[in-house]
Amino acid sequence: MKIIIVGATGTLGKKVAHAFAEKHEVIRVGNTKGDVQVDITNEASIKAMYEKIGAFDALISTTGKGPFVPVTQLTSEAFKSGLLDKLLGQVNLVLIGQHYINKGGSFSLTSGILADHPVAAGSVLSTINGGLNSFVIASAPELENGVRINAISPNVVEDSPSYFDSFPGEIPVTMEKVVKAFEKSVLGIITGQVIKVY
Amino acid sequence: MKIIIVGATGTLGKKVAHAFAEKHEVIRVGNTKGDVQVDITNEASIKAMYEKIGAFDALISTTGKGPFVPVTQLTSEAFKSGLLDKLLGQVNLVLIGQHYINKGGSFSLTSGILADHPVAAGSVLSTINGGLNSFVIASAPELENGVRINAISPNVVEDSPSYFDSFPGEIPVTMEKVVKAFEKSVLGIITGQVIKVY
Ligand SMILES: NC(=O)c1ccc[n+]([C@@H]2O[C@H](COP(=O)([O-])OP(=O)(O)OC[C@H]3O[C@@H](n4cnc5c(N)ncnc54)[C@H](OP(=O)(O)O)[C@@H]3O)[C@@H](O)[C@H]2O)c1
Ligand SMILES: NC(=O)c1ccc[n+]([C@@H]2O[C@H](COP(=O)([O-])OP(=O)(O)OC[C@H]3O[C@@H](n4cnc5c(N)ncnc54)[C@H](OP(=O)(O)O)[C@@H]3O)[C@@H](O)[C@H]2O)c1
Repeated sequence: MKIIIVGATGTLGKKVAHAFAEKHEVIRVGNTKGDVQVDITNEASIKAMYEKIGAFDALISTTGKGPFVPVTQLTSEAFKSGLLDKLLGQVNLVLIGQHYINKGGSFSLTSGILADHPVAAGSVLSTINGGLNSFVIASAPELENGVRINAISPNVVEDSPSYFDSFPGEIPVTMEKVVKAFEKSVLGIITGQVIKVY
Repeated sequence: MKIIIVGATGTLGKKVAHAFAEKHEVIRVGNTKGDVQVDITNEASIKAMYEKIGAFDALISTTGKGPFVPVTQLTSEAFKSGLLDKLLGQVNLVLIGQHYINKGGSFSLTSGILADHPVAAGSVLSTINGGLNSFVIASAPELENGVRINAISPNVVEDSPSYFDSFPGEIPVTMEKVVKAFEKSVLGIITGQVIKVY
């Protein structure tokens, strides 16, 4: 399988790319690093990435940012920046990528636990993750040629210790579990699912 | 209670405004009609609305648009227009309104069934509604001065017969049930809840 991993140079992406590379052709995409570079906030950049890589079987996205700001201090600008990055950016990987992906291919996006379980200052990320989960549920039945789509929704991961204090009461999940969730999405048969890793 | 209803001149808003006007002071806000006009896609316009109306006890939003387009034909521009209208527009009513609302006041936003139950061409609205539901869950614990926030998530309503064919298998809900959901949010004590009217 030819698998594009956008965010392959990040905390989640590194381990996911390593696991898939054992048996598959992996194209590691980053913003500044990786085999290929892309900016998911820029449509033209996404198109250029797909043109460069050509037909593929799976797109994994382990990328996307949103600001952490308490609601009481949140500006519209900050909120919008998150929507246009992690939410619209990942959606655009699908909207544009559906015209390049092989028959029977799959999209696997990353949302996160904040969709359902909020933490302080996390309302932008909660909104983004909730939106992504619903996008996956709604777009799956409409994708053509047997193309599938799922969202992986992890808790804070063991490899991000600097986030632990922001997630009181949460037990960080192992990267092995996160990798397995992506395997279920890419190598399995499910579609329109939110795979919760928590 | 002094209650602002943004979208008061629309299908849902008309009936909601009528019900609350029995016992409360209602300010009917529309885009072109109503006592006051606002454009929720424009921050300055939202600020001007709050400045004009002054302190208030409850903000009800029954507004927000998003395009109905099949995923296979969906453009990034169309998707973004929905995010910036029904999603960011309602979020901005809260982000800006929190600085004008009275102690113990409440925000009641409108999402919709598509967050969980998709229909053809509805992926933008699904994403918006899922995002709004998570925003409410995440922002409620951070709002200050006892201010509450909930989302009302209706099925297609009996007063919108032109939508019925787009919601196969759904039983349109009565406007009475929708009005009751807003009453629960505004006059009750709950916060951070998604009130499903289906
Ligand atoms: N870490 C966690 O505990 C956790 C838990 C739940 C969910 N998540 C979600 O998982 C995703 C990845 O998180 P992470 O912690 O692995 O992030 P990370 O370590 O910061 O990695 C981010 C990755 O995205 C790339 N990137 C940055 N800006 C980009 C852009 N504009 N366009 C395309 N790619 C861009 C980076 O490339 P370069 O290296 O080239 O800059 C890098 O590969 C995020 O959506 C996050 O919200 C994370
Ligand atoms: N109808 C349903 O079956 C149904 C079901 C579930 C959820 N919903 C949701 O409920 C909400 C209201 O739906 P509806 O059917 O009542 O809509 P509608 O009849 O089209 O009414 C829209 C209302 O919003 C106002 N408006 C339009 N653009 C605006 C803007 N840019 N800024 C501020 N206000 C604006 C309109 O004002 P003017 O009259 O002055 O133009 C009107 O008051 C929407 O979010 C919809 O997705 C509807």
